[in-house]
Amino acid sequence: MIQLILIKNGTLVSSSGTRAADILIDGQRIVAVEDAIDLHSQSQIQNLQSIDASGLLVFPGLIDVHTHMRQPGGEQKEDFYTGTCAALAGGVTTVFAMPNTSPAIIDRATLDLVLELAQHNAVCDYGVFIGATNTNQHLKLNNPDLRECGLKMYMGSSTGDLLVEDFGPQYEHFLHYPHERVIAVHAEHEPAVRYFGQHGERRPHICAEVEVARVVALAERCNRHVHVCHVSSRREVEIIGDAKARGVPVTCEFAPHYLFLTTEKEQGTTDAGEPSSYYQMNPPLRAGDDLATLWANLDVADCIATDHAPHTPEEKHSAKPPSGVPGLETMLALLMTAAHDGRLTLGDIARLCCEGPAQTFNIAAKGRIAPGFDADITLVDPNELWVIGSKPLFTKCGWTPFEGWPVRGAVKQTFVRGRLAFDNGAVVAARGSGRRVEN
Amino acid sequence: MIQLILIKNGTLVSSSGTRAADILIDGQRIVAVEDAIDLHSQSQIQNLQSIDASGLLVFPGLIDVHTHMRQPGGEQKEDFYTGTCAALAGGVTTVFAMPNTSPAIIDRATLDLVLELAQHNAVCDYGVFIGATNTNQHLKLNNPDLRECGLKMYMGSSTGDLLVEDFGPQYEHFLHYPHERVIAVHAEHEPAVRYFGQHGERRPHICAEVEVARVVALAERCNRHVHVCHVSSRREVEIIGDAKARGVPVTCEFAPHYLFLTTEKEQGTTDAGEPSSYYQMNPPLRAGDDLATLWANLDVADCIATDHAPHTPEEKHSAKPPSGVPGLETMLALLMTAAHDGRLTLGDIARLCCEGPAQTFNIAAKGRIAPGFDADITLVDPNELWVIGSKPLFTKCGWTPFEGWPVRGAVKQTFVRGRLAFDNGAVVAARGSGRRVEN
Repeated sequence: MIQLILIKNGTLVSSSGTRAADILIDGQRIVAVEDAIDLHSQSQIQNLQSIDASGLLVFPGLIDVHTHMRQPGGEQKEDFYTGTCAALAGGVTTVFAMPNTSPAIIDRATLDLVLELAQHNAVCDYGVFIGATNTNQHLKLNNPDLRECGLKMYMGSSTGDLLVEDFGPQYEHFLHYPHERVIAVHAEHEPAVRYFGQHGERRPHICAEVEVARVVALAERCNRHVHVCHVSSRREVEIIGDAKARGVPVTCEFAPHYLFLTTEKEQGTTDAGEPSSYYQMNPPLRAGDDLATLWANLDVADCIATDHAPHTPEEKHSAKPPSGVPGLETMLALLMTAAHDGRLTLGDIARLCCEGPAQTFNIAAKGRIAPGFDADITLVDPNELWVIGSKPLFTKCGWTPFEGWPVRGAVKQTFVRGRLAFDNGAVVAARGSGRRVEN
Repeated sequence: MIQLILIKNGTLVSSSGTRAADILIDGQRIVAVEDAIDLHSQSQIQNLQSIDASGLLVFPGLIDVHTHMRQPGGEQKEDFYTGTCAALAGGVTTVFAMPNTSPAIIDRATLDLVLELAQHNAVCDYGVFIGATNTNQHLKLNNPDLRECGLKMYMGSSTGDLLVEDFGPQYEHFLHYPHERVIAVHAEHEPAVRYFGQHGERRPHICAEVEVARVVALAERCNRHVHVCHVSSRREVEIIGDAKARGVPVTCEFAPHYLFLTTEKEQGTTDAGEPSSYYQMNPPLRAGDDLATLWANLDVADCIATDHAPHTPEEKHSAKPPSGVPGLETMLALLMTAAHDGRLTLGDIARLCCEGPAQTFNIAAKGRIAPGFDADITLVDPNELWVIGSKPLFTKCGWTPFEGWPVRGAVKQTFVRGRLAFDNGAVVAARGSGRRVEN
């Protein structure tokens, strides 16, 4: 029996702003969004569940196009269950998972394996990237029914099979990967470490803008969409902004850590007393004027994505800590706080976390609250004040670089395709209830 | 005994235009440039040679920063004597030679050898580039007294030792080659041949703009001067123009063949009935709108350089003809003709062929007709009509892609440091009279 859900008296958030409206959900889909929905005349009224969203903001479920679910091979850090539980707690109803697992997702068999792991474990919807290598340029051409959400290319900052550093194979991928699908690139040169190291400079990975310039030129040359991941520095923003103005089919994502943290944070310990490796990520934190440039050019961003990249405390406390920080459970609270402080609008959040990701990755029925769309809905209390770390974290790694930060705005309930999945601090979705997004 | 030379009644050409003036040369240097020089009061009058330049244009000796002298290893095509004879015939008094000889000029011993060959053979002044490799990033640091004119880096379109395709070594060269000296880059990807070949497209080397974007980003990142060789396409011009407007220390050169020939020329035979390989060069000829963009953006160019790259007719008639065409003897006549047609001014020619190259490569006392400067002077009859090919060529290869073209403007005399070196069709300079330029 199909259950009708009526979310009443909420304040809907979309890129065009906020408005009061009721939402009627029939099964997995939104069927009506109106000022005041009156169901007395409807026949299915006996199946109606009514939810009072008075005082709450109603966001489209957030779509995070950049996460590391760590499965397979990194289950001590995260897996599809814990990672998607963290997503729900953060108001995120769709996650795209990166291919740098172990084994890496660079062929059909591994992709199918990972999709099966996701299918059995995820509690929100998901997509899985395939990774570009120097030799798999024809993977999609030879497997047109491959069920990946996009192609991820590491153009410098990776090792092993996933490193595609040379122009030739980069170009082949740009030519051969179907042009209606998205290539997401990590455009930065890790090898620069040793060259800069020779001059005693502290910053290791500062060549993002050089590779972004190449990416933009490649996208323009091949006239194909490319999505630049985790833009973090001033010149990247300028290059991408110029390219967009010129009509180059390039999109990009900002990540919360570059919007809220700078290199200054790396001195000493974190606010919670943890080692500075808790701020070590790839790309690394940038300077204050980089952060300011990101905020001043939010219009250049198509998405905000977490680059959720959990590692265990043991790994982060080790002599050679890996790069990456978790982010799914803190993104919305941080952005809501920034909105309260006037740094962006609620509409910006809806554009960057919901509509933009859906548009960028051609996800048909997500990202908006409108009839015919999936009933992915996040209810947020905009006035709840809390301190990050005071609520239990769902990510398996169990920590966050933002521990101790006071924030305003808390996710109360998260619906995935019409089912209540997260309810006031508890994941109530069944393991495996997430579904692969077709895009 | 020092010989005084007085060039009277000529029309001097400089970037600011033309003006009537006499030039007094004392030994190798210009000592006076005045409206009407009267020497009756001077004591050295007995040594005076007076030249009547009535009706002639007086250019600073042209500086061609991009030539292939083919010595050693390619003496069937050219050598320092024949190549510099061709230079003089074209009004060029300084040539910079590229390092892709055999052996390639990638170490101190080979550079010294080539400089000795030049010293014994050149009839005009010269410089010799060293070539960047993946492993010689510290060559100049370890040999600060190395006598190269600059560093040439082939960022894609080369093979063997001279190919520096990867970001790491490129970056190292940008960091380590002294920042007051010039890195000249061939920024184009030949590997694209096979990728485009798969789609049946005819153009082989169409990725210049992708690498130019990287070069500009590298120059900006490292804040060091880089000179982009043979700019040939619209997007390159736009990228470099934008970079200059932004203050990035980038310069560039245009080449005559891209200003006068397009891909259309490659159909069938040349105007002189030779195979289309006579138009085959690297970068290849471009489309008409590329050519139009070059002409419309001459202000973006710092130099016009020939990329004089002779091959024998036998080589060009072979099944796999090499890329490259000669250009030293035709550049000025082609540009003079274009000036007559109103496509650029005589001042543009002086800026692009004399002053600009000297500025770009920090050549102290060349490129201008002014007191204290080397007496490198080219006398040109602006009204002489002739047909390219009707005069004997000095280049050893013995052909030109412009054979049969009617042009207006002919070099009558060329002086190198005060010595008459080319006189009405004959090279009169002694073999080995050229000198290495210190820059």
